[in-house]
Amino acid sequence: MFRDFLYSKGIFSENQLLYYLSVFIKAIIIIIITKIAISIGSKLIHKFFEGHKKSRFGLNDKKADTLNELFKNLLRYIIYFVSAIWVLETLGFDIKTLIAVTGVAGVAIGFGAQSLVKDVISGFFILFEDQFAVGDYISIDGFSGIVEVLGLRVTKIRDFSGELHIIPNGTINRVTNKSRGNMRALVDVSISYEDDIERAVEVLNNVCHKMKQELDYIVEGPTVLGVVKLSEHGVDIRVVAKTIPMKQWEAEMELRKRIKMEFDKEKIEIPYPKRIIYSKERE
Amino acid sequence: MFRDFLYSKGIFSENQLLYYLSVFIKAIIIIIITKIAISIGSKLIHKFFEGHKKSRFGLNDKKADTLNELFKNLLRYIIYFVSAIWVLETLGFDIKTLIAVTGVAGVAIGFGAQSLVKDVISGFFILFEDQFAVGDYISIDGFSGIVEVLGLRVTKIRDFSGELHIIPNGTINRVTNKSRGNMRALVDVSISYEDDIERAVEVLNNVCHKMKQELDYIVEGPTVLGVVKLSEHGVDIRVVAKTIPMKQWEAEMELRKRIKMEFDKEKIEIPYPKRIIYSKERE
Amino acid sequence: MFRDFLYSKGIFSENQLLYYLSVFIKAIIIIIITKIAISIGSKLIHKFFEGHKKSRFGLNDKKADTLNELFKNLLRYIIYFVSAIWVLETLGFDIKTLIAVTGVAGVAIGFGAQSLVKDVISGFFILFEDQFAVGDYISIDGFSGIVEVLGLRVTKIRDFSGELHIIPNGTINRVTNKSRGNMRALVDVSISYEDDIERAVEVLNNVCHKMKQELDYIVEGPTVLGVVKLSEHGVDIRVVAKTIPMKQWEAEMELRKRIKMEFDKEKIEIPYPKRIIYSKERE
Amino acid sequence: MFRDFLYSKGIFSENQLLYYLSVFIKAIIIIIITKIAISIGSKLIHKFFEGHKKSRFGLNDKKADTLNELFKNLLRYIIYFVSAIWVLETLGFDIKTLIAVTGVAGVAIGFGAQSLVKDVISGFFILFEDQFAVGDYISIDGFSGIVEVLGLRVTKIRDFSGELHIIPNGTINRVTNKSRGNMRALVDVSISYEDDIERAVEVLNNVCHKMKQELDYIVEGPTVLGVVKLSEHGVDIRVVAKTIPMKQWEAEMELRKRIKMEFDKEKIEIPYPKRIIYSKERE
Amino acid sequence: MFRDFLYSKGIFSENQLLYYLSVFIKAIIIIIITKIAISIGSKLIHKFFEGHKKSRFGLNDKKADTLNELFKNLLRYIIYFVSAIWVLETLGFDIKTLIAVTGVAGVAIGFGAQSLVKDVISGFFILFEDQFAVGDYISIDGFSGIVEVLGLRVTKIRDFSGELHIIPNGTINRVTNKSRGNMRALVDVSISYEDDIERAVEVLNNVCHKMKQELDYIVEGPTVLGVVKLSEHGVDIRVVAKTIPMKQWEAEMELRKRIKMEFDKEKIEIPYPKRIIYSKERE
Amino acid sequence: MFRDFLYSKGIFSENQLLYYLSVFIKAIIIIIITKIAISIGSKLIHKFFEGHKKSRFGLNDKKADTLNELFKNLLRYIIYFVSAIWVLETLGFDIKTLIAVTGVAGVAIGFGAQSLVKDVISGFFILFEDQFAVGDYISIDGFSGIVEVLGLRVTKIRDFSGELHIIPNGTINRVTNKSRGNMRALVDVSISYEDDIERAVEVLNNVCHKMKQELDYIVEGPTVLGVVKLSEHGVDIRVVAKTIPMKQWEAEMELRKRIKMEFDKEKIEIPYPKRIIYSKERE
Amino acid sequence: MFRDFLYSKGIFSENQLLYYLSVFIKAIIIIIITKIAISIGSKLIHKFFEGHKKSRFGLNDKKADTLNELFKNLLRYIIYFVSAIWVLETLGFDIKTLIAVTGVAGVAIGFGAQSLVKDVISGFFILFEDQFAVGDYISIDGFSGIVEVLGLRVTKIRDFSGELHIIPNGTINRVTNKSRGNMRALVDVSISYEDDIERAVEVLNNVCHKMKQELDYIVEGPTVLGVVKLSEHGVDIRVVAKTIPMKQWEAEMELRKRIKMEFDKEKIEIPYPKRIIYSKERE
Repeated sequence: MFRDFLYSKGIFSENQLLYYLSVFIKAIIIIIITKIAISIGSKLIHKFFEGHKKSRFGLNDKKADTLNELFKNLLRYIIYFVSAIWVLETLGFDIKTLIAVTGVAGVAIGFGAQSLVKDVISGFFILFEDQFAVGDYISIDGFSGIVEVLGLRVTKIRDFSGELHIIPNGTINRVTNKSRGNMRALVDVSISYEDDIERAVEVLNNVCHKMKQELDYIVEGPTVLGVVKLSEHGVDIRVVAKTIPMKQWEAEMELRKRIKMEFDKEKIEIPYPKRIIYSKERE
Repeated sequence: MFRDFLYSKGIFSENQLLYYLSVFIKAIIIIIITKIAISIGSKLIHKFFEGHKKSRFGLNDKKADTLNELFKNLLRYIIYFVSAIWVLETLGFDIKTLIAVTGVAGVAIGFGAQSLVKDVISGFFILFEDQFAVGDYISIDGFSGIVEVLGLRVTKIRDFSGELHIIPNGTINRVTNKSRGNMRALVDVSISYEDDIERAVEVLNNVCHKMKQELDYIVEGPTVLGVVKLSEHGVDIRVVAKTIPMKQWEAEMELRKRIKMEFDKEKIEIPYPKRIIYSKERE
Repeated sequence: MFRDFLYSKGIFSENQLLYYLSVFIKAIIIIIITKIAISIGSKLIHKFFEGHKKSRFGLNDKKADTLNELFKNLLRYIIYFVSAIWVLETLGFDIKTLIAVTGVAGVAIGFGAQSLVKDVISGFFILFEDQFAVGDYISIDGFSGIVEVLGLRVTKIRDFSGELHIIPNGTINRVTNKSRGNMRALVDVSISYEDDIERAVEVLNNVCHKMKQELDYIVEGPTVLGVVKLSEHGVDIRVVAKTIPMKQWEAEMELRKRIKMEFDKEKIEIPYPKRIIYSKERE
Repeated sequence: MFRDFLYSKGIFSENQLLYYLSVFIKAIIIIIITKIAISIGSKLIHKFFEGHKKSRFGLNDKKADTLNELFKNLLRYIIYFVSAIWVLETLGFDIKTLIAVTGVAGVAIGFGAQSLVKDVISGFFILFEDQFAVGDYISIDGFSGIVEVLGLRVTKIRDFSGELHIIPNGTINRVTNKSRGNMRALVDVSISYEDDIERAVEVLNNVCHKMKQELDYIVEGPTVLGVVKLSEHGVDIRVVAKTIPMKQWEAEMELRKRIKMEFDKEKIEIPYPKRIIYSKERE
Repeated sequence: MFRDFLYSKGIFSENQLLYYLSVFIKAIIIIIITKIAISIGSKLIHKFFEGHKKSRFGLNDKKADTLNELFKNLLRYIIYFVSAIWVLETLGFDIKTLIAVTGVAGVAIGFGAQSLVKDVISGFFILFEDQFAVGDYISIDGFSGIVEVLGLRVTKIRDFSGELHIIPNGTINRVTNKSRGNMRALVDVSISYEDDIERAVEVLNNVCHKMKQELDYIVEGPTVLGVVKLSEHGVDIRVVAKTIPMKQWEAEMELRKRIKMEFDKEKIEIPYPKRIIYSKERE
Repeated sequence: MFRDFLYSKGIFSENQLLYYLSVFIKAIIIIIITKIAISIGSKLIHKFFEGHKKSRFGLNDKKADTLNELFKNLLRYIIYFVSAIWVLETLGFDIKTLIAVTGVAGVAIGFGAQSLVKDVISGFFILFEDQFAVGDYISIDGFSGIVEVLGLRVTKIRDFSGELHIIPNGTINRVTNKSRGNMRALVDVSISYEDDIERAVEVLNNVCHKMKQELDYIVEGPTVLGVVKLSEHGVDIRVVAKTIPMKQWEAEMELRKRIKMEFDKEKIEIPYPKRIIYSKERE
Repeated sequence: MFRDFLYSKGIFSENQLLYYLSVFIKAIIIIIITKIAISIGSKLIHKFFEGHKKSRFGLNDKKADTLNELFKNLLRYIIYFVSAIWVLETLGFDIKTLIAVTGVAGVAIGFGAQSLVKDVISGFFILFEDQFAVGDYISIDGFSGIVEVLGLRVTKIRDFSGELHIIPNGTINRVTNKSRGNMRALVDVSISYEDDIERAVEVLNNVCHKMKQELDYIVEGPTVLGVVKLSEHGVDIRVVAKTIPMKQWEAEMELRKRIKMEFDKEKIEIPYPKRIIYSKERE
């Protein structure tokens, strides 16, 4: 702009006026394009999510609205930003120097903000793929608990001890969801080597049969799997059942209590550690 | 565009018209090329996968169609994107500034999206190489379970306790597939040092022989391997068998039960921990 | 600047004067723009945080002021920096060489300062999202303690042993906050296999009932969950309660003491390790 | 191309024709060069591998052919790709913008595909250096098994339990090959402190001597190394042997059985844990 | 410079002289600017730290002087370096080639020196934020000891065994300072299940009361917390106190000794491991 | 080349001929320079290694020849490559586009080949610094064994169990060489608390003295260090010796056997675990 | 060079001669500058280290000479390299293409050599800061031993078992030097709960007192710290002393022996594990 200005002898010539006119018109056109782009983009996003709501993907309404709003804002900020720079350039500011200068700071902030972007993208996928929802009992890298908040940046889960774990979504890699489908209750009982395996299995079968009838949260009745270990102190027998989610521990506790009481009745012993002693006199 | 405009004295000269004409023609040519490119590309992809279906690689039909569709979409988006930018540039917009400006945001998003791309590429290879399929019992970095969903981005496996593990494909490095080929059932039994090894092996051989005849899920009959350890409390003898997949645990449980019962009959003792005691009176 | 100077035969011509005049005017305009930009920016930031204070996000006043001040300073430094470079360039200094030359050092410092930027961004999010506050009992990667200082760069927490942990905010990924919501008190007691489970549970229920009435920091009364383990030496029964934060240990200690004393009264034995001994004479 | 076009007043002048002619000729020359380059390159690769087959490096025929084919394909794709871009550029398309635009996507895919390239390069070296072959018993980072498939991208090994491990070649760093050279069988036996070491060693020597004569898979006869530990419960003596690969476990099992039976005969006791007890009456 | 030289027919023309004159003048101006910049910068830094000394941040004098000197040197080297390059360029040396050529080596050294820069920046923050001081007892990633040297690049701490740990500041992430505030002394004592908890607590209270009066390094008197565990062999009771830093171990040792002696007097037994034995005769 | 061609009206003018002539001459000069550069470079490398052979650095002949050949090849390939590109450019091909286009693939391959380069550089240093040689017993990150092959890319070591570990040189960081200098044999023996320490030391001294005279692979005679532990079951006394490499285990085994036999003779007891039992009757 | 050559009609004009003359003169000037730069640089480095030798930093003569030589070589190579490139460019070779072409290989080698640079820089700091010296007993990441060689690239330490650890300096982060200052000898002794603590402490005090007088390598006399643990089997009492470096183990062994013998004399028992047994008859 100023170079041209110097080549000309006079400061304000006819060409200068023409030049400033064209610049002005261009700036206005950019602003108009900006408005149109935002309007069209917003509608497309809206339409996409409305379509999604009714589709088979089963993204519920609340989540669809959240994502809808998120994308509209994102689009608006991006278009405003690009337009502003375009206008500045059209007005004759050397935008490249500006970028070069702010580049170092930009990169520094960019690296810092990198994990923020990663958090939001991960959060988006968790929402979109419905990996877990508020109220699910999940486990992430050793942190287990009920999901309390599922945000775009962080997920908050509260474990049974009441502690609140705040986990940035970007650090969530592998999720274990314990509220999708039936859970398994598993109890191992030991009987001593002196007891009869077949009789013990029979007694366990009785307990299982009775329990299946009495408790309605058990989905797939407790069954005796068999001998899972010939351990140091006895024979370990395994009993498993399927329950509705979050009831597996109750089922296990009930199972343990009933087995113990039935074994007492049937005189089947749960063995204490045993040891055979050879006594020797030392010379 | 505007520089040329300034060098000329008049705003709309004959050359200007010629220039805009050529630009317009060029844009139309680009659009036509775009259409042709998409059409040819789609056909090539289609042909490739049709050929693949019949080939020896054994990619089943459903997977081939999935990949076919995936690649067609990918091609279409890429060509549209390139064309759009080309047209914009032809129309005189300085695309480089645009790229420079959006570059910072682009890089930030690129880094965030990096793992998304990695997920899809990994998913593609799992599908293409048939590393595992829905219904297989697999193990990935300590997460074991039956594959429930095998998508392009995530794999979902459900373990025996009913928990659902959601694993991004990009984090899958080493897969252990437990449903390809026969599985091994392995049982170690201890006998005490006082018992006769050769007699115990003989008894075990009898159990093995009988079991091989009675159970049809055993592929390679249980055989006694030999003495695998002279442990603290006795001699450990190992019995192994090959079964069809997912039956190995049943075979082991059956084997343990039969060995225990045969040992009871033959008066071979599974030893409790033993200790030799020297009593001393302290002065 | 000097190139132009050389092309002209005379050292100070009429054009030179015009040139220096234009440069001077431009510099002044930049300084004025700088002032205006700072003024507007500060007001916008101020307004944003004032609005936030009253909003439902619940950022308390002290934090809002901290962030307000932070952003104003940040804005001021950025605008000063950009203006200074702009003025320098307008005055004819080749700013690009400067950047290129100082670039190496800049990058080196940039990498070093990277973690500083990350600390501040993380600190900002901890403040803004109210992940924890001064006085909370939190746990970060194995360091637990009461938050003493919550700064933009570091967080200082003091654990119960009096040690002061100084943790840069950038290294904080997953926070466990133990002061949000009620905490759980959990006590496991063993009874021997010879004791009657149902009677023990009854006794425990009495202890729980009494305790609920007498202690006001218990929110959700202690309840007997059931048999959680058939262990080597006895039956493990679990009792849990909900208390207000930081009172969970007191509740557990009280519970343990009362259970022990009630068991003594009721002659229910907490079992020592038991062992069954078979004595043999060695030949 | 279009800039030149604008500088000229007429649209199709004499120079234009000359220009298009030269472009056309150049394109044809590029295509001819391409053909020649592929032909020469293929022959060089072929010759290299034919030479290799007969050389002392001992790359077997099947592997040489695999690599031969791989390199020819690689060369062909690279040359086609370079030529296509060159032709496009000669025809006047601004290839740099194209590269810049597709660059972002390219980098993203490049990062994703990076591990693919690494897999193939690693696979090439495993093949070329003959680190292991199909049928070898190898161990990679804790996964042990027989190599079933040795591909360019993945290696599949099946362990003794029947599980199939699929390992990308790029993640293979350190390979342990257990099928190259003789393996060692190692057995430690305890004798009690009361027994005579020299007599026990003599008995073991007898067992070793006999075994060496009877079993032909033992390459370097079992020898008694000596006292490797004065442990808590007795003196540990070590016996080692060299066997042909995969027979080491059989040799160990045989050795254990024979030692146990010879010790029984010679009344040398393998000691149970011992303890000295001082009884005291408490006041 | 030489290009211009070639365009002119004569080697030394009038313009040449004018050119060299202007270059010479420019170089002198740069040197003058350099001097002024250093002078102003030094004063600003000095003023900043003088202000800091008196301020509430509590940076002690010695540290302020260290940092003052550091920043002045840093500024001086940076300005000299920039000026030197500027002068070289003004004299007509093509500085860009120089940078490009030395760039590779520069990057290599830059990467190597990266950790050096990181060390110094970390060192600066440790000094500035007063994270720890010479004489403090601190713990960094498992290395505990008294700080002996706190430099800009490394910290040296000597642990109680006399070993000197040399730790680069850049590898210090989380510091645990054990000399800021009072420390806790903690002693757990076991009593047997047969003993009366309430009486034991009473005895412990007496010990605590007496100790509080006799020892002046105890800040917050030892108090009996309660029953922290119903362990295998007895009831664990916890006693805690607050002491001045580095006296916590002395307090614990004193507490242990007094409790033991008081328990001896009061006939409260610290239990040895107990076991209940059921003897059985084996058939 | 073609731009110039277009500015001229005729296709083949006089200048054209001059131009092609100059290009041809330049190409020939480059080829001649190439030949000379290779010849000189090879001689310099040869001379360097010949000088090295005779020097004090003690690089043995075989290694020097290996490195000599390696560097000559490296030089030849580099010079050929640079010349080829230079000739192409001289002939008028735009080499920059070629580089830009192949750049993406080049980077991908570069990243993959990165570890190859690292392997060779590390291999070079291992050879040059003589860190270990074929036949040495070394240990690298938990893999121990005799070095069988020491190549530029991989090192192969065979451990005592016969397994062959193949380790890329680039992954070798810290090497432990166990064949440079004398090795230590170390034996700890326990005596019971009832035995007399001084008498036991005397007996051990006798064993050491005798052994030093009889065994010639012991370099520094076995000496009794003293009481290294007051352990649970007795007093641990340590005896150490220095032997020639790979004989340390033999020395230890011999030492253990002799100590045990001498102790038997002198009635010094190696203690079994001891326990003091208080019997109580429970009410 | 050739471009100019083409614009001129004749091949060798008057201007050409002038041009080649100026080039030649410039090359000679560069060579002279090179010589001067090396001479001045060497002297500055020499002076710096001579000054350092006499200064308080205490860098001993041998190290100063090593570093002196290192920096002179470094300077010489850098200046030669820069000059060579400058001369080449002055002679008209397009150095940028050369750099671009060799850039890819350069980067690959650069990455590989990166760790080499890091090794040397780290080595420099170890030397300069005198972190450890040949003969010191140090510990680096679990490798402990006497420093045998302290080079610029690797450090070699020999541990007590005779193994030689070769550690690249670049992998050395945290050094523990055990030869700077006095070392601590620490012995814990158990006495049984039945023994009198005060009497035991008195006996230990006597042992300490005597030992302090008799052994001259003890710097700070052994003192009884107090009761450090109320353990399962008895009361643990700690005794500590300060010795000159490398004598701490001798002091500990002597201390253990004397304590044991004094306790024997004074009839204070070092307790074996104790257990209280309740016998029960099972119904």
